[in-house]
Amino acid sequence: MRTLKLTLAYDGTAYAGWQRQTNASSIQQLVEEAFAHFMDGEPPTVAGAGRTDAGVHALGQVASVNADFEHACEAVLRGLNVRLPLDIRVLSVDEAEPGFHARFRAIGKSYRYRIITSPILSPFDRHTAWHVPWRLDLGAMQDAAARFIGTHDFASFQARGTTITDTVRTMTRVALAGHGEELVLEVDGDGFLRHMVRTMAGTLVEIGSGQRRVEDVDAMLEGRGRDAAGKTAPSQGLTLVAVRY
Amino acid sequence: MRTLKLTLAYDGTAYAGWQRQTNASSIQQLVEEAFAHFMDGEPPTVAGAGRTDAGVHALGQVASVNADFEHACEAVLRGLNVRLPLDIRVLSVDEAEPGFHARFRAIGKSYRYRIITSPILSPFDRHTAWHVPWRLDLGAMQDAAARFIGTHDFASFQARGTTITDTVRTMTRVALAGHGEELVLEVDGDGFLRHMVRTMAGTLVEIGSGQRRVEDVDAMLEGRGRDAAGKTAPSQGLTLVAVRY
Repeated sequence: MRTLKLTLAYDGTAYAGWQRQTNASSIQQLVEEAFAHFMDGEPPTVAGAGRTDAGVHALGQVASVNADFEHACEAVLRGLNVRLPLDIRVLSVDEAEPGFHARFRAIGKSYRYRIITSPILSPFDRHTAWHVPWRLDLGAMQDAAARFIGTHDFASFQARGTTITDTVRTMTRVALAGHGEELVLEVDGDGFLRHMVRTMAGTLVEIGSGQRRVEDVDAMLEGRGRDAAGKTAPSQGLTLVAVRY
Repeated sequence: MRTLKLTLAYDGTAYAGWQRQTNASSIQQLVEEAFAHFMDGEPPTVAGAGRTDAGVHALGQVASVNADFEHACEAVLRGLNVRLPLDIRVLSVDEAEPGFHARFRAIGKSYRYRIITSPILSPFDRHTAWHVPWRLDLGAMQDAAARFIGTHDFASFQARGTTITDTVRTMTRVALAGHGEELVLEVDGDGFLRHMVRTMAGTLVEIGSGQRRVEDVDAMLEGRGRDAAGKTAPSQGLTLVAVRY
């Protein structure tokens, strides 16, 4: 049995997210079905490092698959891309050590969240940014972003209804850059809870709008309840940029 | 009767082009229907400066409309954008001199054509670039592009079946820039024939691929027949950037 490591980019607009679902089209399902071409019998399970939600994009999602076929990695790469729609691309296929698992072996991930503050949103940003058409205090948002850096309990930044109880994560980089009417939040961490980056983005916009203060971030982290933090920003602004091993 | 000048941006992916058609959704039709909200009776005719084809985009299309309502330009801008889908945005609405016509008064237009040469096309470029996944000779393409500058008969670069017989146009800028795996062709001229920029792009790719020589451009221009020039590049790489008056 070989283990392959796939790197993928996708536009998540048309999908219910990475993870296979019963009644909706997922990226995992399409990649698994594309794999079926190389296999006898059932498609294999393709395990993604990050289970991106509906509408969330990826530039460097990583997935692992165990397969017992002979095809060279380059042939698998071409064969998958021929069968996948153009909004999902496999960027590389590499041989991995036996037992490699894209999610359990990941030691860190990088996400990006885009915000556009222009009065009118360009048609070309509509699927890849959150439109916040008012003035934001960039300096306050940058100060607040810095407060997320380090090891914290991010329970307040986790989606409701999640069963995960170990909510301590370490953020090595939380930086917000302003390029005119585009704000880009870049977050690197050892792991992320569901909706965590989106809730950080929503909270930063509330701070930039004057609804909350920079210092409130500390109380949000201490609060350990979803009501303590700001709103969840919409999914289309979020991109999984890279996974580290 | 007032005359208004509209500037629009749109993602042309979902549309049969600017121009109103019987059996397909056009940008003109949607803008006219959005206008109907301000009017009594039939929607007005909204005349676009450039009749962009199916799949072609705009960052600065200009359109004119004659209307006899009292609404301020800012209210028209907001009202149109509320009614239009997010892939069509009105960027500005201004009062124009009586009799202004977006197409007949235009003295020049700027187009952009994007080509991506990476082996695998990013999902985020699939609607806005032509994927040419092989090595192109940028220097040869740049030399060839320069030969389009000036006043020429562009009959060979006009779509078949077009009835326009005055095919002489003046190009003030035809420049190809390479940014890694992205090539961007920028063309400024006093007017454009149907498919003209796309045929220029298709011809440049043939030259960059070694199928034609730089010097062949002169013979193409002299040939005055569609067969003399290269293939028409696909629509999704083309964007109408600006219209000059």
